[in-house]
Amino acid sequence: MSEPIQDLAQIDHCELLTPLPEESLRFFTDLFGMEIEYREGQSVFLRGWGEYQPYGLKLTEAGAAGVGHVSIRAWSPAALERRVEAVEALGLGRGWTDGDHGHGAAFEFTDPDGHPFEIFYEQERYVPPEHLRPRLKNVPQRHVDCGAAVKRFDHVNLLAADVTAVRRFAVEDLGFRLYEQVILDDGEETGAWMSLTIAAHELIYVADHAGASGRLHHLAWFVDTREELLRAADLFLDADVPIEAAPSKHAVAQGMFLYVYEPGGNRVEVTTGTHFIYAPDYETVVWSQAERARGQAWGVKTIDTFHTYGTPDLHGTVGPPIPPTSRIPTLDVHA
Amino acid sequence: MSEPIQDLAQIDHCELLTPLPEESLRFFTDLFGMEIEYREGQSVFLRGWGEYQPYGLKLTEAGAAGVGHVSIRAWSPAALERRVEAVEALGLGRGWTDGDHGHGAAFEFTDPDGHPFEIFYEQERYVPPEHLRPRLKNVPQRHVDCGAAVKRFDHVNLLAADVTAVRRFAVEDLGFRLYEQVILDDGEETGAWMSLTIAAHELIYVADHAGASGRLHHLAWFVDTREELLRAADLFLDADVPIEAAPSKHAVAQGMFLYVYEPGGNRVEVTTGTHFIYAPDYETVVWSQAERARGQAWGVKTIDTFHTYGTPDLHGTVGPPIPPTSRIPTLDVHA
Amino acid sequence: MSEPIQDLAQIDHCELLTPLPEESLRFFTDLFGMEIEYREGQSVFLRGWGEYQPYGLKLTEAGAAGVGHVSIRAWSPAALERRVEAVEALGLGRGWTDGDHGHGAAFEFTDPDGHPFEIFYEQERYVPPEHLRPRLKNVPQRHVDCGAAVKRFDHVNLLAADVTAVRRFAVEDLGFRLYEQVILDDGEETGAWMSLTIAAHELIYVADHAGASGRLHHLAWFVDTREELLRAADLFLDADVPIEAAPSKHAVAQGMFLYVYEPGGNRVEVTTGTHFIYAPDYETVVWSQAERARGQAWGVKTIDTFHTYGTPDLHGTVGPPIPPTSRIPTLDVHA
Amino acid sequence: MSEPIQDLAQIDHCELLTPLPEESLRFFTDLFGMEIEYREGQSVFLRGWGEYQPYGLKLTEAGAAGVGHVSIRAWSPAALERRVEAVEALGLGRGWTDGDHGHGAAFEFTDPDGHPFEIFYEQERYVPPEHLRPRLKNVPQRHVDCGAAVKRFDHVNLLAADVTAVRRFAVEDLGFRLYEQVILDDGEETGAWMSLTIAAHELIYVADHAGASGRLHHLAWFVDTREELLRAADLFLDADVPIEAAPSKHAVAQGMFLYVYEPGGNRVEVTTGTHFIYAPDYETVVWSQAERARGQAWGVKTIDTFHTYGTPDLHGTVGPPIPPTSRIPTLDVHA
Repeated sequence: MSEPIQDLAQIDHCELLTPLPEESLRFFTDLFGMEIEYREGQSVFLRGWGEYQPYGLKLTEAGAAGVGHVSIRAWSPAALERRVEAVEALGLGRGWTDGDHGHGAAFEFTDPDGHPFEIFYEQERYVPPEHLRPRLKNVPQRHVDCGAAVKRFDHVNLLAADVTAVRRFAVEDLGFRLYEQVILDDGEETGAWMSLTIAAHELIYVADHAGASGRLHHLAWFVDTREELLRAADLFLDADVPIEAAPSKHAVAQGMFLYVYEPGGNRVEVTTGTHFIYAPDYETVVWSQAERARGQAWGVKTIDTFHTYGTPDLHGTVGPPIPPTSRIPTLDVHA
Repeated sequence: MSEPIQDLAQIDHCELLTPLPEESLRFFTDLFGMEIEYREGQSVFLRGWGEYQPYGLKLTEAGAAGVGHVSIRAWSPAALERRVEAVEALGLGRGWTDGDHGHGAAFEFTDPDGHPFEIFYEQERYVPPEHLRPRLKNVPQRHVDCGAAVKRFDHVNLLAADVTAVRRFAVEDLGFRLYEQVILDDGEETGAWMSLTIAAHELIYVADHAGASGRLHHLAWFVDTREELLRAADLFLDADVPIEAAPSKHAVAQGMFLYVYEPGGNRVEVTTGTHFIYAPDYETVVWSQAERARGQAWGVKTIDTFHTYGTPDLHGTVGPPIPPTSRIPTLDVHA
Repeated sequence: MSEPIQDLAQIDHCELLTPLPEESLRFFTDLFGMEIEYREGQSVFLRGWGEYQPYGLKLTEAGAAGVGHVSIRAWSPAALERRVEAVEALGLGRGWTDGDHGHGAAFEFTDPDGHPFEIFYEQERYVPPEHLRPRLKNVPQRHVDCGAAVKRFDHVNLLAADVTAVRRFAVEDLGFRLYEQVILDDGEETGAWMSLTIAAHELIYVADHAGASGRLHHLAWFVDTREELLRAADLFLDADVPIEAAPSKHAVAQGMFLYVYEPGGNRVEVTTGTHFIYAPDYETVVWSQAERARGQAWGVKTIDTFHTYGTPDLHGTVGPPIPPTSRIPTLDVHA
Repeated sequence: MSEPIQDLAQIDHCELLTPLPEESLRFFTDLFGMEIEYREGQSVFLRGWGEYQPYGLKLTEAGAAGVGHVSIRAWSPAALERRVEAVEALGLGRGWTDGDHGHGAAFEFTDPDGHPFEIFYEQERYVPPEHLRPRLKNVPQRHVDCGAAVKRFDHVNLLAADVTAVRRFAVEDLGFRLYEQVILDDGEETGAWMSLTIAAHELIYVADHAGASGRLHHLAWFVDTREELLRAADLFLDADVPIEAAPSKHAVAQGMFLYVYEPGGNRVEVTTGTHFIYAPDYETVVWSQAERARGQAWGVKTIDTFHTYGTPDLHGTVGPPIPPTSRIPTLDVHA
């Protein structure tokens, strides 16, 4: 038995692209309850109240929605070097940059599907400004009391034309652990749930049925409790946020989910769950086509867009593919 | 403005009919976590841990599933007399009985759709047996620690061929307050949510699209928190209980719901919520056809059976109309 | 058996006095998450998002903290007349006023301990302004997404020199139902928990050990879930709100509690719970001295101030009697 | 910067000693809701429903309460070898055993305070018996529906005469990450919270003020939600379990806690929380004497026994040091 690769510590942040930067920013601050940590050029750096790193989201104006890059932090300088070598050996490397706001030199590369990634080690410690100083010293920032008040970035779900290829890369070259998988009757692998830690997933790949490359399925943020997630649904309803999938529980990875669209058209999730994998030799759970056809944990079927839509949208549409959930007009009785 | 009728205090219990009495009993004890309070003839009297009355459910063997009767307690002997007079004046009375286990003389009648009801006042106080004695003196019984651990009977939802007729009877003759209503574009009233208290509903009528009479849509039991309701869904999944509607939130009356089938074929609900109506002049909320078409609070659409199935089943089927939710087989990896 | 009095529907609102009106207002808007519904003179009218009446709190500048008045709504004009007659017969009446913002003519009186009350029937219906319009038509106002986001006024707890006298008045003349009581070994009644509805309490009297009259113990606001209450504790901690009693569960009435001080010095509570009393002949639960000495439901003992402090403070102190809970300074490690 | 040690994967299980084995076993099965996985000699092997390993608790009859041993699983055979070498170099090794039920060869050693430990790699996969087979294939066992229904073993807290010595051993030789620490004004280190993963703690050492060696403060089991923890408190109250500390939130490590005594006299905790440390260079949070004196997160002070009692008890007492929480007798009204 070979030794496990344990060189990467966490997905530190993701860059999300939006054609409607002002509306998207308002969504993440007012409805997700995130703080603006920094602004630079066409980008705004945003953080959840429970993030120890400076930010978990870099929101950048762009011609189309999608993921800008996925940024992973290594365990040490030596660990970083080992991963750079592995990636370079595959010819996927793009070279070093001086880093970005809050972190040092980063090595850029793409996964086999073309999604941009970077890995780095050196990072500034987050220091909250006076008005955000917490009263408990082991909390990085004062609690956010507005909106969904997401705690921290949780995971990224990427669409890929060849899930097997990207999954192998993530596991064999980056060191992700493969916890769950979907394999259809014809042998096609259509989903892979992977993690660097005991958390049930940090990086997910699912099949892009459109056959496109480099697209995003969704980014997810964590809240501590299912009650907060249910409360978020009420807030989003009142705020006309398009809800794609109402709160329920995933069969795969057992997370509680709430999927909505931010104004730029990207799917984003509020998630929570305490399904931890401590075992060093956890045997990957493989779901069959028939099993997946049975819906989510309690039998809920996700709607079609969940299985077809990604960003950038292949039809060039700007904004969410479904109408807002302001489905139930206020009543005359109140007027 | 006329004085409100305040003669009836609560729906004390319901009688549920089942063609599979042993299986149904096991469901209510093992999965709903109810205690057997008494047995007599073909009936078993069951209670939730938080009920002050002796029992909230009388489960009775019968040729077909459905509701045996709905039993309402009056505020006082005089209040009982007033309601008896009102019902008799309509010709719906069936006369007095000596009562039943745990309560005194009751006046039997039917609503205009033919559902059997009774009203009474005298009732025995519940005294828990030694092994069920609680440690807090304001709790009627020791907490149940098994299954969904439902706290108390909450409401009954009856199907009716003519909702307007039964709603008028309940409001004008029994004194229920009408909190919410559904009226279609053609003026047909297809749903009425009514209560004797600040609770959002205790008696509900919805249209029986099959045009039958005297049928049951569902009985509902209360749990204190949404977390308990979500936990119940996990327990029911593992116990192969057929889940008709996974946990979500109703638009009408705002209750959190989980609908399943007990083995006898009756739909039963686990519910919770704190939508209270204190206002003495609350204006009935009227939902239109278009509004109802938009689904539940967060956009979830209930499946067809929810709108068509009732008990007794018109096709004479015994047992649940849908298969168990053991939809996701255990994995070979564990074997 | 006599007929129950069912003339009063709800405690509609309370007037709270504060010597620090600006600070108190900021507390109720920013930390409790209440909306300003109206301003007039030295008063601000505030509401929780789930209140059907226009407001549940009238906050008024005054020389000292305390309760301005308790305002109760009757079930009907005739019911109002009956209660006015009962109160006048006792010589406690102060006469009619033209009403106040949002409601019509009110009859003012005091309880035997001198606390000011009023009863009325006519009330304006609350119409949310455009920016607060909800998406679900049975919700009175858009969800508040900031602070503790209290839903509605829940109950008032008044200190009284002679609990038996005020309890008798409330039960026999106003029609409150007495659900729980504390009676010491020497026969002194030191607490009475009463309600107009199935809710576990709306009006509470506890003994004023200082022997003063007309003082306030606390006002309480409801949140839907225990999770929201726990979250409120985290928010209050970060906001330097003095926490008198951390979240736990009451033995009496079984409510979950969180007691803090608003800047004016009044004790206020965030509460939740679903202990409902449907029974028309519920036997009052009587707690003995020994039982009360055992602490709250899970054994927590409340601190001394909880049993001694009320408003107005007899020492003339302005503001909370205990220091803020910013007990745990932020750490240098973050600096 | 040196490379982090990442050789150990998880604290797999602990052995708990009890002088009252039958009573202790009934506590863990009936009240904690654990399943008996195996019996052998004077030991019973117990598991929470969410454990992937065969068991998390080995309960063994002994003359006195306390911890039998702490068992840690390595990431790989090579990782195991590295840790054995490190421990042997310190002269703390006791040698290899053939293993125990469910796992292979283990290396036994003690920490510098004399607590017995073992490390191993080879382990059998848990296969649920037919009646415990789950319906979701990524869950190890059917949900337990009784009692507190603890999900999995979470952490062990050991008393030590010299916290600095054991903390250094755990960090430098075993590879635990030090997340939080208490250092008094005189420089004495009195507490260390450590983990092998992103979980806030798996191994805790606190000062044994009695100066004894090898004693246990408590073992803790995880539940998914705070609601389950609050529900456990209600169940324990009704079951006369001695509650030492009612549900509240820790300042250190932010976990929600509920401390009780099992019949053998050992302190056990129900815990939950989602305070995760992903950062590879997390700076240890150091709490001062003054900060710790301020109580738990919301200001609650833990009672004296929490800071003085451990097992084995130095006075030779058998069973819990405090009386059961059946403090509030049932009421005559129910009798």
